[in-house]
Amino acid sequence: MAQSESEFEQRIIVVGVGLIGGSVAAAVRQRFAGAEVVGIGRSEERLAAALDAGLLTSFAIGLTAEMLASRCTVVICLPVDMIADQVKQVAALAGADVLITDAGSVKGSISTDVAGNDAANSLFVGAHPIAGGEQGGFENSDPNLFDEKVCIVVPNGNESLTDRACRFWQSIGCRVSRMSAAEHDRKLAVSSHLPHLMAAVTATVTGAANLPLTGSGFRDTTRIAAGDPALWRSILAANRSEVVAAIGEAQLVLDQYRSLLTEQDDESIEQLLADAARCRNLLNCCDTIPDQITSR
Amino acid sequence: MAQSESEFEQRIIVVGVGLIGGSVAAAVRQRFAGAEVVGIGRSEERLAAALDAGLLTSFAIGLTAEMLASRCTVVICLPVDMIADQVKQVAALAGADVLITDAGSVKGSISTDVAGNDAANSLFVGAHPIAGGEQGGFENSDPNLFDEKVCIVVPNGNESLTDRACRFWQSIGCRVSRMSAAEHDRKLAVSSHLPHLMAAVTATVTGAANLPLTGSGFRDTTRIAAGDPALWRSILAANRSEVVAAIGEAQLVLDQYRSLLTEQDDESIEQLLADAARCRNLLNCCDTIPDQITSR
Repeated sequence: MAQSESEFEQRIIVVGVGLIGGSVAAAVRQRFAGAEVVGIGRSEERLAAALDAGLLTSFAIGLTAEMLASRCTVVICLPVDMIADQVKQVAALAGADVLITDAGSVKGSISTDVAGNDAANSLFVGAHPIAGGEQGGFENSDPNLFDEKVCIVVPNGNESLTDRACRFWQSIGCRVSRMSAAEHDRKLAVSSHLPHLMAAVTATVTGAANLPLTGSGFRDTTRIAAGDPALWRSILAANRSEVVAAIGEAQLVLDQYRSLLTEQDDESIEQLLADAARCRNLLNCCDTIPDQITSR
Repeated sequence: MAQSESEFEQRIIVVGVGLIGGSVAAAVRQRFAGAEVVGIGRSEERLAAALDAGLLTSFAIGLTAEMLASRCTVVICLPVDMIADQVKQVAALAGADVLITDAGSVKGSISTDVAGNDAANSLFVGAHPIAGGEQGGFENSDPNLFDEKVCIVVPNGNESLTDRACRFWQSIGCRVSRMSAAEHDRKLAVSSHLPHLMAAVTATVTGAANLPLTGSGFRDTTRIAAGDPALWRSILAANRSEVVAAIGEAQLVLDQYRSLLTEQDDESIEQLLADAARCRNLLNCCDTIPDQITSR
């Protein structure tokens, strides 16, 4: 344990210092006082502000081979459509003792893209910490954002490197669950991507004119619809087929409600609503995640 | 103003002392120290507990003509499928100076039913305070539940009685908006009933097995799906045709997302998401309700 902690006291390079990257940086700095946390981004002004906010120990606009010569962990916190390219760029400069991981919310397209590049493939272990918020920017970052949150880690075939990635995400508070990229994408399509679309659809159908007639139900149901459209465009595009399948499932259930209402089968409607309520209530009563899905 | 306040210091009879009825009682007692607040329900034990909790000044299992002989306001806080019958029962016992109002979240079916009964029609002004919570029971009642919330009041043709109902709901904190029953039901189908169904559908599609992979987005989006299935069954049934139409609109938008994803028209997806985000953000920036929909 002492060894695995000291391993992470060395050097973390965060590529993309927004809400997630900033929170990774904050979490590392809070837990490992001696850690070097380097921020990489496009705007010197923003990076300087993140440094002033205490999130980073240094920053740079671009990565160099020198930064990547010795042991370090590179955490790529960019929109999903930029991750694979960035992994390849980092791998081209990196020494053999570098771990590259990411925080992208889609895994299959990144894995496939990276798999075609030997250097990248040998250093990259994809991950997805299920944490966030609809307000982006490092200003909203939180050193405790990852506490007890599930982080999916996609094993890359190299057991020792995969373990190292798991330990990294655990070291900043996550509960790690190993899963193939395909399984991740299928499950997240229904647990995250569909809920976002349903919130957006609800906001669209209700419309601005009816907002004065909404209550707290609408407010909560549509909160995530305020999320960044460009970010969500790239998530949906990267998980296209699974999201299409999830929409299909939602349409089937909506069809069911519509048919039952038309047929005046109110008994069955109550049954469907009760099933949904039972499922949702499991979330209220279970603060902890079932052990079988986590490996710590 | 002094006159209109004193008018409500007299006697309020709350039929159905759950979350809404209990909050009406609490709001009246908090604002009008001298008010008599009578609770009517089925369970003496529950009513006695509500009395002990300070919500009521007295209670009874059934209404009598004696209770309804002089000026008072009867507020019916029952599930929507029980309201019209109750209005008729109260009206059959009531003197000419009684106002009957309700808090049902559907108005058309109640108005139609009540309209066929002259006594009921002459005393009843339907209302719908847009306030609540997914946890029922008078134990969750709140004297400030109605503060600044919109209450739709359906004019009944008698202007002075309608005004009296408006003043009642305003006296416990509401912002009143007058609207026909048909307009109310059409608008609430999209601002409240559809969001409930969308939350339920999302919970159903995600399913218990995927709950460990959900984040705060799913949590918020599905919160209202935990609401009482029997209560929602009766709301959906009472607003059947408008809810079916709202489901149809949601299906069209879901179809649009599905087609655009399949066609890889990601630009248009971002546009749709941006429109939804813009609509949702109006709710964040506008704490006050546009004046044109309220009449205070």
